[in-house]
Amino acid sequence: MTTTSQPKIFTLAEFLAMPETKPASEFIAGSIEQKPMPQGQHSRLQLKLCNLVNDVAEAAEIAMALPELRCTFGDPLAIRSPLGRRSIVPDVAIFRWERIPFEADGDIANVFEIAPDWTIEILSPDQKDTKVIRNILHCLNHGASLGWLIDPAERLILAFPANQSPVELSGSNQLPVLAGLDLNITVDDIFGLLRSPAN
Amino acid sequence: MTTTSQPKIFTLAEFLAMPETKPASEFIAGSIEQKPMPQGQHSRLQLKLCNLVNDVAEAAEIAMALPELRCTFGDPLAIRSPLGRRSIVPDVAIFRWERIPFEADGDIANVFEIAPDWTIEILSPDQKDTKVIRNILHCLNHGASLGWLIDPAERLILAFPANQSPVELSGSNQLPVLAGLDLNITVDDIFGLLRSPAN
Repeated sequence: MTTTSQPKIFTLAEFLAMPETKPASEFIAGSIEQKPMPQGQHSRLQLKLCNLVNDVAEAAEIAMALPELRCTFGDPLAIRSPLGRRSIVPDVAIFRWERIPFEADGDIANVFEIAPDWTIEILSPDQKDTKVIRNILHCLNHGASLGWLIDPAERLILAFPANQSPVELSGSNQLPVLAGLDLNITVDDIFGLLRSPAN
Repeated sequence: MTTTSQPKIFTLAEFLAMPETKPASEFIAGSIEQKPMPQGQHSRLQLKLCNLVNDVAEAAEIAMALPELRCTFGDPLAIRSPLGRRSIVPDVAIFRWERIPFEADGDIANVFEIAPDWTIEILSPDQKDTKVIRNILHCLNHGASLGWLIDPAERLILAFPANQSPVELSGSNQLPVLAGLDLNITVDDIFGLLRSPAN
C-alpha cells in the first residue's frame, strides 16, 4: 500500500470512541471522512423522503425511514478490505420492521449494527460520488436490497438494485422501491419535492 | 420536464454535424457535454491501459483497446430516455476482435456505431462521477460485459460487471477483465502505472 493517500489509519474502536461531529463522520477502510454540510436541497429531500416512506410504511409496521442514522456493520476482521466493517451514516436508511432493533421497553434502539434494507444518498454540490457509491455498495454487500443515489444537480437518480447493474433514471421514469411498499413515484416527483409549497 | 437544467435540446444529427471539440464532447439525452481536459494522471493511465490490453490481445486478434473513440449507439427513437441513442467517448474502449468494423481494404473503420465490450473511464479531479457512470451504464445496457471507473484521487476502482452490482476494489484486489484476456492485474498495479519510470 505505498500509494495510499490516507494520512493515518484508525481502528473502528478508536473512531467510535470519538465524539460525534456535525456533519457526521464516517469510518471507511481505516480512515475517517466527514460528510459535507447539507445545503437546502439536500436537507429538504432528506426530510421529504423519510416522510414519503413512513407515510406508507410506519403505521402498518412494514418499514421505517430514519435520517442521518449511524449504521456500523461488515466483517470486523477485514477493516481495510471492501468487505470490512465500516461505520456509515446514510442520508436516509430504511429498515424492514422486523429488523429494527427495539429495546425492552419498546423504544427504538440507539445503536444499529445492521445494514439498512434500502439506503438513499443525496449528492451535495461538488461532492464526489465515489465515496457515496462505495457506501451504497457496502450496504448491498451486507444484505440491502436497494440503493438510490440522487443527484439534484443532474436531475438524475441512479438506482442500485441488489445483484443487478445500476439503473439510470430521469424524468417520468418510475423508481424502484423496497418490495412491499405501496409507493408509486417518478424521478420528476422526487425533484418536484424541491419546489416551494403545496405539500 | 419543468425541472430540467439543460438549456437547449439538440438532435443527434445536429450534434454529429458539428466540428469535433478538444476535449471531445458527448451527446446525452439531447444535451451536449464536453469532457474535462485530461491532466497528467488521466493521460498516462489512458495510454498505459490501452497498451496493457493490446499487448495481450492485439497480435492474437482477441480484442483491441482504443483511446478517445467516439461510439454512437442506442435506440434512435428514444433520444431523451436512458436507453436512447447517445454519442459518447470512453477514455478507453475495448472491442472483441470479431466486432471491430474494418473497411474493405482491411483498415479499421472510422465510425463505430456499437457499444464497446469493455469500457474504462478515468475520473478527472473534480469531475462528477454521475455523468461517467451514466456512460458506463449506457454501454452495459447495450451489450458491454464490463465497465471500470478509475478514481485516481481515491485510489479506488469501481468495476461494473454486466447484470451484477458494481464492485469496489482497492489495494491488492484482483481486477475483473474481459473474458478471454490473459491479464492478471490488481488495483495497486494500475495505480503503480502512475509512478515515474521502470516501464
